[in-house]
Amino acid sequence: MLGRPRRLALLAEQSFSPRDAKTAVGVLRYRTDEVAAVIDSARAGATAAACVSVGGNVPVVAGIEAAALHGCDTLLLGIAPQGGELPPSWRAVVCEALARGWDIVSGLHVFLADDPGLALLARTSGSRIFDVRRPPAGRPVAARRAMDVDAMVVLTIGSDCNVGKMTASLELVEALRGRGVRASFVATGQTGIMIADHGVAIDAVAADFAAGEVERLVVAAARDSEVVVVEGQGALHHPGYSGVALAVMHGACPEALVLCHWAGRTRLRVADDVDVPLPPLAEVRAAAEQAAAWVRPAATVAVALNTLDLGEAAARAACDAVGRELQLPVSDPVRWGAAPLTDAVVAAWERRRQQRTTDGWRTTLIARDEGSSPERNMA
Amino acid sequence: MLGRPRRLALLAEQSFSPRDAKTAVGVLRYRTDEVAAVIDSARAGATAAACVSVGGNVPVVAGIEAAALHGCDTLLLGIAPQGGELPPSWRAVVCEALARGWDIVSGLHVFLADDPGLALLARTSGSRIFDVRRPPAGRPVAARRAMDVDAMVVLTIGSDCNVGKMTASLELVEALRGRGVRASFVATGQTGIMIADHGVAIDAVAADFAAGEVERLVVAAARDSEVVVVEGQGALHHPGYSGVALAVMHGACPEALVLCHWAGRTRLRVADDVDVPLPPLAEVRAAAEQAAAWVRPAATVAVALNTLDLGEAAARAACDAVGRELQLPVSDPVRWGAAPLTDAVVAAWERRRQQRTTDGWRTTLIARDEGSSPERNMA
Repeated sequence: MLGRPRRLALLAEQSFSPRDAKTAVGVLRYRTDEVAAVIDSARAGATAAACVSVGGNVPVVAGIEAAALHGCDTLLLGIAPQGGELPPSWRAVVCEALARGWDIVSGLHVFLADDPGLALLARTSGSRIFDVRRPPAGRPVAARRAMDVDAMVVLTIGSDCNVGKMTASLELVEALRGRGVRASFVATGQTGIMIADHGVAIDAVAADFAAGEVERLVVAAARDSEVVVVEGQGALHHPGYSGVALAVMHGACPEALVLCHWAGRTRLRVADDVDVPLPPLAEVRAAAEQAAAWVRPAATVAVALNTLDLGEAAARAACDAVGRELQLPVSDPVRWGAAPLTDAVVAAWERRRQQRTTDGWRTTLIARDEGSSPERNMA
Repeated sequence: MLGRPRRLALLAEQSFSPRDAKTAVGVLRYRTDEVAAVIDSARAGATAAACVSVGGNVPVVAGIEAAALHGCDTLLLGIAPQGGELPPSWRAVVCEALARGWDIVSGLHVFLADDPGLALLARTSGSRIFDVRRPPAGRPVAARRAMDVDAMVVLTIGSDCNVGKMTASLELVEALRGRGVRASFVATGQTGIMIADHGVAIDAVAADFAAGEVERLVVAAARDSEVVVVEGQGALHHPGYSGVALAVMHGACPEALVLCHWAGRTRLRVADDVDVPLPPLAEVRAAAEQAAAWVRPAATVAVALNTLDLGEAAARAACDAVGRELQLPVSDPVRWGAAPLTDAVVAAWERRRQQRTTDGWRTTLIARDEGSSPERNMA
């Protein structure tokens, strides 16, 4: 991770549960071998698997000193709190890690390297602070350039935040590769970046350039890929994060959407004291397809259902119910693998390839987009 | 402006036309008395009115030295280029102004006060640099709190960027005040901020907090107002700026929309080398109402048509055609005043007041939003 293999301590103090420690769980799931310990004094003595069902025997410890016994060399902040601030109680832990010469990996909105006290500590001990949410210096404005790539772009969209868009994307990419498809993952959030070692936290980019950064990532990823899977952000019905959701969508110009939902969730929690009803999934899907079509039409091809809260039978029943309601393949990619989603994406990709072979794909583009500027059509 | 009355020189070098100098034209229109000169060497010797139809006899001059003869004490950058950089040729002009001890007002995405060379010059000469696009330090996340204000929120939306959303908003506020309605203006872009002396450039806010900043502004403005008019940003069909458009919409939670369009524009210019067809206005309207309804339903009540390119008869005909197509009142508020738009907004406001008196408006809220959380309903 970030230049070299690491011995990570994941900080998840008072929060090491599947719901509250999204970043820690993601890193545990996909970079298991680099995690040496998890810090949560409330759960010290347990294993990661016992707390969050992933990470096997990785020990949960009470603090930095205990983590040091496991040979850690890097502290990774394993939460993504609303607002993005460093919880005050965690500051001491970060200082302790820096004092030991550990590097820090943070996905907070507040940049730790810009904190004079922490920066001084880091300089003194030779530590590095990686603020993975810090936006790139450029100011790209999206202009649907992602429409022109040869690869098929797939976007995961969500009924809410924290429903499993990143996980569905990663599982889909792995399954596509397993079938011999050259697939790539575009990370758009802090956890995805920590896992993939590349990407941009779109929610931290100035609003004018959020879509432009996604476009840049997709165009770059498409160079070596047949399918590009873009991690969606936010949700169109979330009053705080709908703008990010739309920016990712219009920057990526997907042709296929995978709808992600947390089974049983009926309310959108928009603040500590405000939640609102979640519309029916059919409405979420329709809204996403309408919004996509403002720039480029896209079809929802599958549903990834997060059934973490359910037993096996209830999870199956939930998938069946959603499948009937939306007439789409449904799976929980973590529980049962991404095969149904992958089938759907591969089928869309095959249809598209046949159509492009038949029509010549530039012709298709011109026909659909009658008024396109001459420069585009002649390209 | 910005703390005291000023003698402004508006920098619009090579660009002093209604299309290219949006910021300069806005400031000239609404803060005429503070503008002492416009700098554009290509048009030196002309008056502002001759170049952009506003600003009367304000002289256009060739450079800083000529502007100084008119007693200027502040240089305002009068363009808003895509990407937000300082055009290299303008840097020398900014330096010259700083050397004379003038203040600088800039709406660029790049912050001039952060440029070590410019900052040093400013310190030496006692000048101040106002980067009006610099976002506030807070990190507010929108949670449709703007739904709870007593004032009616009106949002101007656009078929494209630079079609007249800010101007329509300002004209509407003035006309509402003329009718005795306590109306306030929420500035969301750099020009609006320069004119109103408050507001936030939403396009420069980190995407996660863009809607939250709008919400904060609307809630504050609503305290002393019966109608809050929010300047919209971007356009839902613009691949680069759709995210900002939606963030402003979902932060503001408007009940009424005023659709703004540049008469005759049929293409959305999304980059120097890319433009795309603009959908019919009826589709733009439908998209906006769909998007609003994801958080709070809103009705389009009027259309502001920018008829700058047309003669009087053609302008009338354009308004009539749009009025027939959308079955809405239409006017060019700059050409003929905002009366038709104001009538429509006042009518919506009266309907709303009656309905709230009849039903009790909390009841209305609960009925519409069946699943609202208990905390909200009991408030």
